Amino acid sequence: MTFQPFLEAIGKQVDNTTYGANPIELYEPIQYIMSLGGKRLRPLLTTLSAHLFTDDWQKTLKPAVAVEVFHNFTLMHDDIMDCAPLRRGKPTVHEKWNANTAILSGDVMLVNAYELLLDVEPVHLPKVIKRFNRTAAEVCEGQQFDMNFETRTDVSQEEYIEMIRLKTSVLLGFAMELGGIIAGADDATTQALYDAGVSMGLGFQLKDDLLDVYGDPEKFGKQVGGDIIANKKTFMLIEALLLAEGETKEQLHYWLAQEQGTYDTATKVAAVTDIYTQLGIDKIAEAKANAYFAHGFDVLQNLPVAEARKKPLLDFADFLVGRES
Amino acid sequence: MTFQPFLEAIGKQVDNTTYGANPIELYEPIQYIMSLGGKRLRPLLTTLSAHLFTDDWQKTLKPAVAVEVFHNFTLMHDDIMDCAPLRRGKPTVHEKWNANTAILSGDVMLVNAYELLLDVEPVHLPKVIKRFNRTAAEVCEGQQFDMNFETRTDVSQEEYIEMIRLKTSVLLGFAMELGGIIAGADDATTQALYDAGVSMGLGFQLKDDLLDVYGDPEKFGKQVGGDIIANKKTFMLIEALLLAEGETKEQLHYWLAQEQGTYDTATKVAAVTDIYTQLGIDKIAEAKANAYFAHGFDVLQNLPVAEARKKPLLDFADFLVGRES
Repeated sequence: MTFQPFLEAIGKQVDNTTYGANPIELYEPIQYIMSLGGKRLRPLLTTLSAHLFTDDWQKTLKPAVAVEVFHNFTLMHDDIMDCAPLRRGKPTVHEKWNANTAILSGDVMLVNAYELLLDVEPVHLPKVIKRFNRTAAEVCEGQQFDMNFETRTDVSQEEYIEMIRLKTSVLLGFAMELGGIIAGADDATTQALYDAGVSMGLGFQLKDDLLDVYGDPEKFGKQVGGDIIANKKTFMLIEALLLAEGETKEQLHYWLAQEQGTYDTATKVAAVTDIYTQLGIDKIAEAKANAYFAHGFDVLQNLPVAEARKKPLLDFADFLVGRES
Repeated sequence: MTFQPFLEAIGKQVDNTTYGANPIELYEPIQYIMSLGGKRLRPLLTTLSAHLFTDDWQKTLKPAVAVEVFHNFTLMHDDIMDCAPLRRGKPTVHEKWNANTAILSGDVMLVNAYELLLDVEPVHLPKVIKRFNRTAAEVCEGQQFDMNFETRTDVSQEEYIEMIRLKTSVLLGFAMELGGIIAGADDATTQALYDAGVSMGLGFQLKDDLLDVYGDPEKFGKQVGGDIIANKKTFMLIEALLLAEGETKEQLHYWLAQEQGTYDTATKVAAVTDIYTQLGIDKIAEAKANAYFAHGFDVLQNLPVAEARKKPLLDFADFLVGRES
């Protein structure tokens, strides 16, 4: 994989990043969540985007890790709000410690993200902070919309796409834009990188929703069927509610109406998955995800940059499209 | 009051500050907590410190409000952690809405604080963000120490002073330093402003602890005796534990050992207050607070700035020393 050296450099940078020492109760949870791994998708996008314009992509490593720290801060706080017991197969911070610790460690993590961003050259700092602020606020907005949708039954496809754009995609867009800014790309180019990142982010989240239903439990990190059990209003469920008719529609509404704890979850997951497959939702969702990926690729391919410079980034994008976990 | 024009300008700036619009669930709690008032101590210190060096102190208004927004963010999150029902006599955000709302609105408030700081001239931005990051992390550290102290019985005076330095004082120091930086003061001067702010912040918190025991319930915004009821290890309690002997010591330990809900709180507050008075703790705490204030005044008086420029800041410091609420 041509992006392997980037991944290794990011891994080292994460390992060498310190967040503070005293009191230990505040800083230990940060080391913990950062050590749980993950694909390091966002810092990869930053370094790979910088590599489009410079061989000195290593200078983006600290700001790239800032994006990863910010992402993990949102996970730490989202997990409290969602009462999630597990993250990457390990106890969440509020489970391992408590909610207060997860709130306060998360807060100082957000501050740590800004501190890592300070590594950019002063000339880029106002733009970097400005764009990061906008992105961070949008991620919070996305989380709030996601929580609002839990108690609504009339969420439209447009609303769902806008929610995942905010909650997930804009940070991928910012990660790419950041690499461009640090590498000295002009405004039109950094905007193109942002657009590519947002589009691939939408593809990435739709793919995630697909894997949540159709993923291989051995490979997928989370519980397969989790979204179905929670009646999460994903693109797939919204589409199924639009397409289902007659007995299929009745069946779908039957399962949505069951109170948690009153049914066998495996039976529900199997039944709803079956409905999705009958309606061709898997194909529709895959086509939609691929369309977003394709748009991202298009934007990248049109960048006036030598093909060799694009290869690691395009290889990584390919990897994202084909991922099974 | 010579600082009145500064206070009015800050009030207007706070009223004109917007934090975001959609989703309303995310942004309404920010408007709410910012509208609850308070002394606007921190933005006053920023503008008054800038006024030492320039007539154009209005250019510090947005960054000054950044400090106030940050302060209110910490209140919003601390109130969750402390299960506080009231803030400035009104329901706290997690009570009026819920804990998830208070977590997420708080997060976006912290981002808003950074956005308001972006108003400083780019030449000052790296230092301002660097110093703000350090301060923000220290405030979180102070809150963690404060929580740690709840379950400890051996907190020393040094530890308590260090805790309030982190939790309260460094932000007052930063508020003053920020005014100096924006007004173009040199490093030695901004450092002096920081030191003065930290010292006055220690005096301010010790005075707050005193008012918590001896304040006039009509004037003091919080429940008088709250620290005594909670067995909070303040400077006063730690000092009393050091000084008490014989029957007084037994009495003090008796009240500390009572489980909440098993006694009449007014009786405990009266008994412990009486012990403090017998031991002269009120005088000791007042002298300690005044010593910190005096050091702050000294630093300010030694600044090579015309007396007329210092007057509003010194008047405000005087007001803080004499405050009864």
